[in-house]
Amino acid sequence: MPSISNKGQAMPQSPIRKLVPFAEKAYTQGKTVYHLNIGQPDIKTPQIALDAVKIHSPEILAYTRSEGSEDYRRKIANYYAKKDIPVKHDDIIVTTGGSEALLFTFGSVMDVDDEVIIPEPFYANYNGFSTASGVKVVPVISKIEDNFALPPIEEFEKLITPRTKAILICNPGNPTGYLYSKEEIQKLAAIVKKHDLFLIADEVYREFAYDGTIHYSILQEESLDEHAIVIDSVSKRYSMCGARIGCMVSRNKEVIQTALKFAQARLSPPTLAQIASEAALDTPQSYFDDVIEEYEDRRNTLIRELNKIEGVKVGNPKGAFYCIAQLPIKNSDAFAQWLLEEFDVNGETIMVAPAAGFYSTPGVGMNQIRIAYVLNKESLVKAVHILKEALKIYKD
Amino acid sequence: MPSISNKGQAMPQSPIRKLVPFAEKAYTQGKTVYHLNIGQPDIKTPQIALDAVKIHSPEILAYTRSEGSEDYRRKIANYYAKKDIPVKHDDIIVTTGGSEALLFTFGSVMDVDDEVIIPEPFYANYNGFSTASGVKVVPVISKIEDNFALPPIEEFEKLITPRTKAILICNPGNPTGYLYSKEEIQKLAAIVKKHDLFLIADEVYREFAYDGTIHYSILQEESLDEHAIVIDSVSKRYSMCGARIGCMVSRNKEVIQTALKFAQARLSPPTLAQIASEAALDTPQSYFDDVIEEYEDRRNTLIRELNKIEGVKVGNPKGAFYCIAQLPIKNSDAFAQWLLEEFDVNGETIMVAPAAGFYSTPGVGMNQIRIAYVLNKESLVKAVHILKEALKIYKD
Repeated sequence: MPSISNKGQAMPQSPIRKLVPFAEKAYTQGKTVYHLNIGQPDIKTPQIALDAVKIHSPEILAYTRSEGSEDYRRKIANYYAKKDIPVKHDDIIVTTGGSEALLFTFGSVMDVDDEVIIPEPFYANYNGFSTASGVKVVPVISKIEDNFALPPIEEFEKLITPRTKAILICNPGNPTGYLYSKEEIQKLAAIVKKHDLFLIADEVYREFAYDGTIHYSILQEESLDEHAIVIDSVSKRYSMCGARIGCMVSRNKEVIQTALKFAQARLSPPTLAQIASEAALDTPQSYFDDVIEEYEDRRNTLIRELNKIEGVKVGNPKGAFYCIAQLPIKNSDAFAQWLLEEFDVNGETIMVAPAAGFYSTPGVGMNQIRIAYVLNKESLVKAVHILKEALKIYKD
Repeated sequence: MPSISNKGQAMPQSPIRKLVPFAEKAYTQGKTVYHLNIGQPDIKTPQIALDAVKIHSPEILAYTRSEGSEDYRRKIANYYAKKDIPVKHDDIIVTTGGSEALLFTFGSVMDVDDEVIIPEPFYANYNGFSTASGVKVVPVISKIEDNFALPPIEEFEKLITPRTKAILICNPGNPTGYLYSKEEIQKLAAIVKKHDLFLIADEVYREFAYDGTIHYSILQEESLDEHAIVIDSVSKRYSMCGARIGCMVSRNKEVIQTALKFAQARLSPPTLAQIASEAALDTPQSYFDDVIEEYEDRRNTLIRELNKIEGVKVGNPKGAFYCIAQLPIKNSDAFAQWLLEEFDVNGETIMVAPAAGFYSTPGVGMNQIRIAYVLNKESLVKAVHILKEALKIYKD
């Protein structure tokens, strides 16, 4: 029997996926499971986007340009202009989700054994894309005590080697919910210029900034013309995760021309989803105002309830829709499995994402979980109550 | 300024893309351009597929399972059963086009510097996916004199090294139109078993077999349970290139489990396009009968007209909708550019794909072009007439 690749063997499995069989077992036991583990929002997709594919469906479902249709890219540039992010349509390549934008970026700027520095905890799939690209993730730990703020810039500097090609941040952060300040972005700008690195920012949660804060994009730093690459996506912004439309944005012409070669090899991003995504750009501000209000409310509820549990430590996330909670346990992988397999309160339990999978440093985050507040407030209150009851009796 | 990757620099540009600026120039000169260069069929997408997205569009455009929805995979397995290809739904991973199926396959079975043997001329983007994966393409030349039949199996055997992991074929072939016989597939089966290699077959043109021939899939070889991986796609079958839905199929559980990790990292294939693709499976046989009849007619017209031109050599393709034509010229790159820039017959010219880009061996195929017969017969006759007139006056 021919053997699979070393790369394939090394590909990490998501920490959440490992729990799926236990969730399925819980269902067959008749339990209700509150899903705090997933990033699939329950918010409705804007009707204007769903309607677009019903109205505009063509006679032949043909390829679009590899970089995305020009009309759509011009509209995306216009969206960025409204956010005070100065980019042109030809600084943009439309991708199959933010995932493909990451793959194109990794392929365009990094070779096998090159290094990318990422503050951890970070989005678990960065590990997958790094492994697929043969790139080494070098983590720099951000701490729950600091609310997961940017680690001191000296910590980054210590990790820079001749193989370092980029620093990657997620802003606002999945799984931390942390929103980087303009000052933090400027510190990163200074270090990437000093060491001639790329600064890659995954800004797919841009709209989800709370308490009146405003997201500051790395592309607002004019001095980063050659260094900044933004990963973007319609998935969370318009609750269109299934569209699989994102984009890669850079004012560095060489980066865009290189990424275009990867884009051409796969021919075209999905046409129907581009139609929906183009229409979604006309979503009225009121939609976002309502969504932000809803998420702020949920976050306030979640953090308030979590803080009532003795021994639980949680930050105060200003963005996205996740938080990391530290629990009075030793191993959240085992705890998450136990919640599904062994525990319930009146037939109800919760599914959480163990946080170790969001760290690259072994052993860190073992007593933490990620909670996604993609459920309504009533469900969140019930879910945190279940967590509280579970912690009362759980033994590591 | 930070430098892009070596890999990014090495990524090949499609031979057709290089001509696009010259085509645009031809348009601005007011010329009509017959596109013999593209694989985008002019055949209408089945209405049942287009209607499905209008009827079934959900309230939240959510992720599907990473491997594709179970319903859709069961229906795909049923489609294969009708073709006497015995696979189960869990032998299938739904991908974002055949392109992603190739990427997952390369990632799952090959590491950097591993080798894949491919009969050339081959689909040009195999070069792109190989470069992106760090894999080395080892070509084995198939000849126009043999109608691009499978090269003698000894030629493959000579090229096998300890780094060889797979043989990749495209059947029916893009760009050759050659349809491998059952005997040829069995020869390949024997050699991959003997040397413990994977046999990867890109079968996206499966339906397009002419003159009463029937495609023979590598998955019909039962002895290839562990060795066979099929790349498939809805793009050509249902004229749905823009859907970006394909799949990867193997009865090798380890391969599928490994590919699933790559699939999970990118979360989900496009949801709307899956809805359309699932509906497309109910396309009546009459649709294919009409399409096959149309393509046979076009092929007959094209080959007949090409054979009338002195000095032009062309095979008799039995499948797909391409042929390779050898011309009495030295450099088809320059010729293709000249056709767009300098030549016209009453304001009309043609765009062709220079064939060198479909070969990996330098210098081979320089006097060949690929012609896609995705235009109606009248246009094909006009286009070949333009080619004939051009060859009368062209000087290398």
